[in-house]
Amino acid sequence: MQLNDSARLVMERCNILAAYSEEADCLTRRFATQPMRQANDMLATWMNLAGMSVHTDAIGNVIGRYAGQQPGAKILLLGSHLDTVQNAGRYDGILGVMVALVCIERLHARAERLPFAIEVLAFADEEGLRYHSAYIGSSAITGTFDPAILRLTDNKGITMADAIHTYGGIPDVQSLRTPRWQRSDLLGYCEVHIEQGPVLEVCNLPVAVVSGIAGQDRIKLSFTGEAGHAGTVPMSLRKDALCAAAEFILAIEQQARSQSGLVATVGQIDVQRAASNVIPGHVALSLDIRHLDDALREQARQICYEQARGISEQRQVVLDWQLTQENRTVSCNPRLMDLMRQAIQQTGNTVLTLSSGAGHDAVVMSKLTDVVMLFVRCAGGISHNPAEAVMEEDVAIAIDVLEHFLAHFVA
Amino acid sequence: MQLNDSARLVMERCNILAAYSEEADCLTRRFATQPMRQANDMLATWMNLAGMSVHTDAIGNVIGRYAGQQPGAKILLLGSHLDTVQNAGRYDGILGVMVALVCIERLHARAERLPFAIEVLAFADEEGLRYHSAYIGSSAITGTFDPAILRLTDNKGITMADAIHTYGGIPDVQSLRTPRWQRSDLLGYCEVHIEQGPVLEVCNLPVAVVSGIAGQDRIKLSFTGEAGHAGTVPMSLRKDALCAAAEFILAIEQQARSQSGLVATVGQIDVQRAASNVIPGHVALSLDIRHLDDALREQARQICYEQARGISEQRQVVLDWQLTQENRTVSCNPRLMDLMRQAIQQTGNTVLTLSSGAGHDAVVMSKLTDVVMLFVRCAGGISHNPAEAVMEEDVAIAIDVLEHFLAHFVA
Repeated sequence: MQLNDSARLVMERCNILAAYSEEADCLTRRFATQPMRQANDMLATWMNLAGMSVHTDAIGNVIGRYAGQQPGAKILLLGSHLDTVQNAGRYDGILGVMVALVCIERLHARAERLPFAIEVLAFADEEGLRYHSAYIGSSAITGTFDPAILRLTDNKGITMADAIHTYGGIPDVQSLRTPRWQRSDLLGYCEVHIEQGPVLEVCNLPVAVVSGIAGQDRIKLSFTGEAGHAGTVPMSLRKDALCAAAEFILAIEQQARSQSGLVATVGQIDVQRAASNVIPGHVALSLDIRHLDDALREQARQICYEQARGISEQRQVVLDWQLTQENRTVSCNPRLMDLMRQAIQQTGNTVLTLSSGAGHDAVVMSKLTDVVMLFVRCAGGISHNPAEAVMEEDVAIAIDVLEHFLAHFVA
Repeated sequence: MQLNDSARLVMERCNILAAYSEEADCLTRRFATQPMRQANDMLATWMNLAGMSVHTDAIGNVIGRYAGQQPGAKILLLGSHLDTVQNAGRYDGILGVMVALVCIERLHARAERLPFAIEVLAFADEEGLRYHSAYIGSSAITGTFDPAILRLTDNKGITMADAIHTYGGIPDVQSLRTPRWQRSDLLGYCEVHIEQGPVLEVCNLPVAVVSGIAGQDRIKLSFTGEAGHAGTVPMSLRKDALCAAAEFILAIEQQARSQSGLVATVGQIDVQRAASNVIPGHVALSLDIRHLDDALREQARQICYEQARGISEQRQVVLDWQLTQENRTVSCNPRLMDLMRQAIQQTGNTVLTLSSGAGHDAVVMSKLTDVVMLFVRCAGGISHNPAEAVMEEDVAIAIDVLEHFLAHFVA
């Protein structure tokens, strides 16, 4: 099969999987849902046809194994995730699984075995949309799963344990805390992913090697003031929790703008018992902070906290601040990065090295093995949005690069 | 019955009605719901025992009629509303109906008829919580109902027409556009209500005559920027709709603080498809603006709009601005105010005249007849809040004043 035919197949499969959605008018596919099962079943069929043995683990990760030349060979891992954000694009995560799959198909078509086994991983949850806890899939497969999150509930009050059980998985701490592999059996983890940023487009390049993934804090905070009647409480006597939140949002924006490489985002805001004629008494917010330099990220988090505290004191409202997740910056393995650079050069493309502002499954996989990533250009740097788009010719180059990476991989 | 026994009865009945709620842990009673039916049924029972004939109209307003000395006598209207905001207090609206009811009971106990009939009105919707359109009850009874709002939907997608139908009402334009009375049959409308503000407490007085009800604008607005990945879009390239909204909220607060008598409130904010790792692309807000001076309110609204427009232009986001409701300031009738002042003096209390920052059913009733209101002190000026509280001795004074008002009413 020609590279461009393989690339077209990848594009078609991304379209097919995009139809498995919880919402009729857009793509939303959360952890342990019916659309996730449909996507997994479709993928398992494709994997079987590509000569892989397929296994679904206790949490719904799909693992396709393509045996090496010898039994007991070490394993190189490829993959990404199949879950999405709400109203998502069709390439975030999915593209990486599809590019890996098509590379195995091409090996299988040539009846070619490599000196190592390959396992293609399709993670059941990376985005954390359903339970506001990211990397569920990769944490279960690496044995780093936090059992406490089994008690988290989704927006319908369903616990994660019940969701896994209903899906047909095993919400059992022993299963979820046992890594699938010994560290010594693994050669590394390689993830192909759309850039989700604008740099490749600005540089007019199709792909890039990733040097590392920026550390990230997730914080839940709230301001509690005093609810009251919008018509009768004079401005001077108000303790408006939403005004405090607004002041915080602008302070965060200004702080992030003033420091190079820092991004900070309030994505969620919720006024308790909101009504147009009631002064907001309690407002909850999410805060997401990222920077490649862990020390600078921690410093930025501290400054954000001081700002929230200052605002709450000045406005006489009560601040609650909870750091719910902290991921340190993950560096890609230098040797794997060199192999990836060589693969890019061998395909006749310019080598660019980028850092990732987005989190990826490679963050968690790095706890068990060396990781490397290949970024693929996406239109306008747009992601987490139905307008997410990649070019077929860039996908062909990504397949070509991954194929060279596999062909010249030195165990 | 002694005045303080009647006051205790009013307090007990407010407690009884507070149990009819859509939520187990707080008082929420919206238009055309089962708890509203329970409250209406309870009220109808009390009205019957007080010698009144009871009628429920097409939209669920309860009308209790206490006949005058002669058939065909003119009618004086008393009343307020039985619906509540979410997580409400137990006196807003309800107190006015209960004080009117107990005055009729006291007349009935003395077998006393007045030279005019009295109708006690309990409106089915004043707050507008379910359909974000206030005064549904009073607009139907005065024939000023806007048929377009029958198509509005609640948070479950149920249209107002369907809700009225399910409740057992008649969502028929003809019924809802026909006033219950001829203007010439009416003597006026008198509403007792908690102040919902702090002035009576500051002045250490139990009651006040109301001079007028501040005009009010309700606006729905939204900012549309660009959703994106919270980790990969640099701060400088963002079009964050929530940051625009935050800037607007603070600008509004500052504007209202700078002008005497002006209050402006953003009570609702909603990020479309919110997630902690997605830059908000679309944010919808409510805005409530009130001032006793209509010209100053209109000027303030224009300034708020200019601010929203300026923010949207500077941030390159799209502004949508819709004035959904505008009520001009309503003045109470000078003659009825004088009668109320005399009644307060006759009970041995100091006369204070206040304006109302909150809207009341009297706003809509003023389209059909002269109106007057009596405010009752509430603790801390707190309302729209479970902490809403009135003192039994103030309620006794309110009953006494209303009784004097009725006894000396000059048709």
